[in-house]
Amino acid sequence: MDALSPFSFRLLAADGGARAGRLATAHGEVATPAFMPVGTQATVKAVTPEDLRACGAEILLCNTYHLYLRPGHELIRELGGLHRFMHWDGPILTDSGGFQVFSLSSLRRIDEEGVRFRSHLDGSAHALTPEKSMEIQAALGSDVAMVLDECPPLPSSREEVEEAVRRTTAWAARSLEAYRGPGVPFGIVQGGTYADLRERSARDLMTLGFPGYAIGGVSVGEPPEAIATVARTTAALLPEDRPRYLMGVGRPQDLVEAVAGGCDLFDCVMPTRNARNGALFTSEGRINIKREQYRRDERPLDPACSCETCRHYSRAYLRHLYVSNEILASRLHTVHNLAYYLGLMSRMREAIAEGRFEAWRHVFHAKGTAPESEG
Amino acid sequence: MDALSPFSFRLLAADGGARAGRLATAHGEVATPAFMPVGTQATVKAVTPEDLRACGAEILLCNTYHLYLRPGHELIRELGGLHRFMHWDGPILTDSGGFQVFSLSSLRRIDEEGVRFRSHLDGSAHALTPEKSMEIQAALGSDVAMVLDECPPLPSSREEVEEAVRRTTAWAARSLEAYRGPGVPFGIVQGGTYADLRERSARDLMTLGFPGYAIGGVSVGEPPEAIATVARTTAALLPEDRPRYLMGVGRPQDLVEAVAGGCDLFDCVMPTRNARNGALFTSEGRINIKREQYRRDERPLDPACSCETCRHYSRAYLRHLYVSNEILASRLHTVHNLAYYLGLMSRMREAIAEGRFEAWRHVFHAKGTAPESEG
Repeated sequence: MDALSPFSFRLLAADGGARAGRLATAHGEVATPAFMPVGTQATVKAVTPEDLRACGAEILLCNTYHLYLRPGHELIRELGGLHRFMHWDGPILTDSGGFQVFSLSSLRRIDEEGVRFRSHLDGSAHALTPEKSMEIQAALGSDVAMVLDECPPLPSSREEVEEAVRRTTAWAARSLEAYRGPGVPFGIVQGGTYADLRERSARDLMTLGFPGYAIGGVSVGEPPEAIATVARTTAALLPEDRPRYLMGVGRPQDLVEAVAGGCDLFDCVMPTRNARNGALFTSEGRINIKREQYRRDERPLDPACSCETCRHYSRAYLRHLYVSNEILASRLHTVHNLAYYLGLMSRMREAIAEGRFEAWRHVFHAKGTAPESEG
Repeated sequence: MDALSPFSFRLLAADGGARAGRLATAHGEVATPAFMPVGTQATVKAVTPEDLRACGAEILLCNTYHLYLRPGHELIRELGGLHRFMHWDGPILTDSGGFQVFSLSSLRRIDEEGVRFRSHLDGSAHALTPEKSMEIQAALGSDVAMVLDECPPLPSSREEVEEAVRRTTAWAARSLEAYRGPGVPFGIVQGGTYADLRERSARDLMTLGFPGYAIGGVSVGEPPEAIATVARTTAALLPEDRPRYLMGVGRPQDLVEAVAGGCDLFDCVMPTRNARNGALFTSEGRINIKREQYRRDERPLDPACSCETCRHYSRAYLRHLYVSNEILASRLHTVHNLAYYLGLMSRMREAIAEGRFEAWRHVFHAKGTAPESEG
């Protein structure tokens, strides 16, 4: 980390294992715990940066794999970087590209050097190394660049997970050495559900020394209890004064448990992808908007929500848009689901700051949904 | 027309054949000449009412055929009418449904009573009569309801067009008698390209007496010059103190010619449909955004435009969104194309008010595009 980097993390309050803090970057501050909407191809699908701000977003995640392939990181650099390209002036975190190589591309071959793959778009051949991933993320101008890691699939043998931990550490060292970007790199703890391997991975990365740490290799199909356990026990291994990012999680209840376990940053496609499929989160439970029961329903999606969608439109109208395949449905549903997720984070931050997080969490789980703000 | 109806039309300025005026409705006023964005299924595709206002829209057109079939006019009435349903508080004009019956549905049978057809959605059988169309539009709460007419296809014999004129008059009389809505009905002049039949149709309708008149049966495949001629000669037959609506037209240059010919209201899917296909209107000519030449183009779509899209995004970014099949492309392109069309109307109104419309029109055609505001 450059001594002059504007990056910093300050803890403001703790309540049990949960923490509230403030992340500072060259593109502004982020109150934590924070949820990062996913802007895969330099756009959070169907919404603008102004919509995202109105929903309460302070930081976005974008996908290196996608942007490297299209439109290309060099082009984005020439055009002034990703912030300018997509008209988002807040912080941006980018992933390493590794996860999508494994989930989207074909003909993958991984070795000590890195990973070779063919583009899911046109079959062209590419290589992603720790150094290359850092170079791409530097060109994009990310505020937080994630190191390339090896995320073993489920099921994997202990030996395979152990080897992934070793390689992840080696790649993290190369990434730290190679990074020449305007932001900071975060290391990623692997180790699957093996407590001792998680510990080894965390210790390795802390020896290298990163401005922030992520907990990777979760949300790959394991039961929710396993995610919560890995999040809690891994967070406890990490330095208190650095942000902890739980990658790819998850459902609202998973976020609550991970916050309780001491995690600070989150990303997931669930609110945005579900929105486009008409699956909506509300303070009264989930809504599948296409159901006949909403045909004449004059109420907003969520009477407790003050997002644009809930202020202006009825369930009946939203159902009509959805069953009519109207583009506006994706937009209005995305605005609502993001407002729900970001509102949930905001209420958790309030509860932590006021020392009542455990009570709030209890009510949340008892109701099966997010209790309303008590502020 | 109810004596208490808030509907009125006031001529403010004339310049050659062109007129500037003001239409007043229960949902607010509209400066004419005006372009009506098309909100087929109770939404202008990909944009919100707030976007439409920001683009300069003052009145929308919605399609009776679509809304009758889905979600149904009775449902919309129960939910407080179309304005409330779609969250647009400005004036709404609805078509009669007849045009879409002929372009979308199957197994149509037309007789003196009306038209029988099968839904393009589920094949269900329906009947649309002049009275039924008025009933549907009254239930929707339209500010302007169009009478059911018979629009003969191209080519049609003189006898067929003559018969369509006769039937259109008979249906207009039944519509006027049947209408019990909150707005006003407009008659529709038919007659194809036969000057004497247009004259007969206009005279028939004026004898019945409508608050406004439309010129129908154009934009069905005839050459642009024929549209301009029909618009000009038919407008000249109509009373000066009533608004004249040229249905379904058209390209920017067609709008300019029709305004020159004395028309006041317009609708067309061209700006919105073209937007979704990446075909964009600018003061420097058309842009097909998917073209390779825009890959590194940092400029806004139209340097002379101040819409949200042109203020915030480069051609390179818009091309990236479009080639990546991102939903946001449809939205940002729609915002721009509507801003272009609505800006064009605004500049024509200014030019008419200032008595320089003929000069403006000359420059427009010489450039092949809309000259910038001189205000």
